[in-house]
Amino acid sequence: MTGNFETRLAELGITLPEASPPLANYVPYVQTGNMLYVSGQVSANADGLIIGKLGDTLNVEDGAAAARACGISLLTQVKAACLGDLDQLVRVVKLVGFVNSTPDFQDQPAVINGCSDFMVEALGDAGVHSRSAVSAASLPFGVAVEIEGIFELR
Amino acid sequence: MTGNFETRLAELGITLPEASPPLANYVPYVQTGNMLYVSGQVSANADGLIIGKLGDTLNVEDGAAAARACGISLLTQVKAACLGDLDQLVRVVKLVGFVNSTPDFQDQPAVINGCSDFMVEALGDAGVHSRSAVSAASLPFGVAVEIEGIFELR
Amino acid sequence: MTGNFETRLAELGITLPEASPPLANYVPYVQTGNMLYVSGQVSANADGLIIGKLGDTLNVEDGAAAARACGISLLTQVKAACLGDLDQLVRVVKLVGFVNSTPDFQDQPAVINGCSDFMVEALGDAGVHSRSAVSAASLPFGVAVEIEGIFELR
Repeated sequence: MTGNFETRLAELGITLPEASPPLANYVPYVQTGNMLYVSGQVSANADGLIIGKLGDTLNVEDGAAAARACGISLLTQVKAACLGDLDQLVRVVKLVGFVNSTPDFQDQPAVINGCSDFMVEALGDAGVHSRSAVSAASLPFGVAVEIEGIFELR
Repeated sequence: MTGNFETRLAELGITLPEASPPLANYVPYVQTGNMLYVSGQVSANADGLIIGKLGDTLNVEDGAAAARACGISLLTQVKAACLGDLDQLVRVVKLVGFVNSTPDFQDQPAVINGCSDFMVEALGDAGVHSRSAVSAASLPFGVAVEIEGIFELR
Repeated sequence: MTGNFETRLAELGITLPEASPPLANYVPYVQTGNMLYVSGQVSANADGLIIGKLGDTLNVEDGAAAARACGISLLTQVKAACLGDLDQLVRVVKLVGFVNSTPDFQDQPAVINGCSDFMVEALGDAGVHSRSAVSAASLPFGVAVEIEGIFELR
């Protein structure tokens, strides 16, 4: 099924991959009522994990690309939760973005904008969200960014 | 409109400022049902951003003042979401407080109490909340504290 | 009252202690509708706080044990919220695990699995959850792990 959101993604040149399976006794998402809680998605693309530390091995542009990759993974999980029909998504409610950075890095917002901008590019008004952007001392596997989200479904 | 909560704030000598506008493709709050998700508010007051690192350039008292400033910003956003009538707020549900600190700082609870205490001073029983208090490796613009919140509205 | 979940815990050799009281102007949990928000639980057991930093004074196994202790504290608070009848719990919705670690630690998932695995051991399918696992620059009192949770009640 290809709806409005999928058409928009196609225009952006993005095909959502198969959702990654759960890695342990947790799962990529849990729905309660019409709220969908998606687990923290670590920065990765078709080439594998996006590794590095902002303020050290990565610059803000690298970080924003990593955050955009997290955004694609988040929508991939939303699509799986919607059994393939992404148009069941009403809106993005909340994102929390964790940036793997040095102790003096100050551009967390510009990094996480890579995900925020993607959500609005892909979803229009439904992509506008509340969010927090902070640094983590480190992240799983050394990834650059991890972002979790809360989504409202129909 | 000046209701009970606004009267209490006036007694505390606090006038909530105009809510700050969104800075990017995210917004200061999103309401879904009667739940309001407010974006992470960085420590700032009329003099500007409150910058610094706990355990280094700031002490616990400084940090608690910064957290209180975050609390005022959170309520400012809640008031905006309520179209100016803060008495539409039922209660504070959850706060997550991020403290910009050195790796050996241990007084995150005392810092975030600056916000928690303010909520109860301003809102009475409606200000009592669940919360988490942790350190971030660093925060946007070098601010001392960032706090996000979930609020229940009528 | 001893229901199914309590029986399972007993089989695991776990008796949930009395829930710890609130420490300040925040409380261990807030319920809104059928959603229960439990405050961040710091790693502690009958011997006191579990202190240390992953990648420095603690290894992954130590960290997983600390995370398991957080899980027991979370269920203790859920039980208190259910007035002693843990079978009022429908499911664990979401966990966020903060690991006190050095800047180059990469095994946050293996640490937080200590809590995730406990939830499924204790609750079966109802224990399966969404989650995020990140490092904090430091944590209250120097504890090794802090975990917060969202739970659905009947």
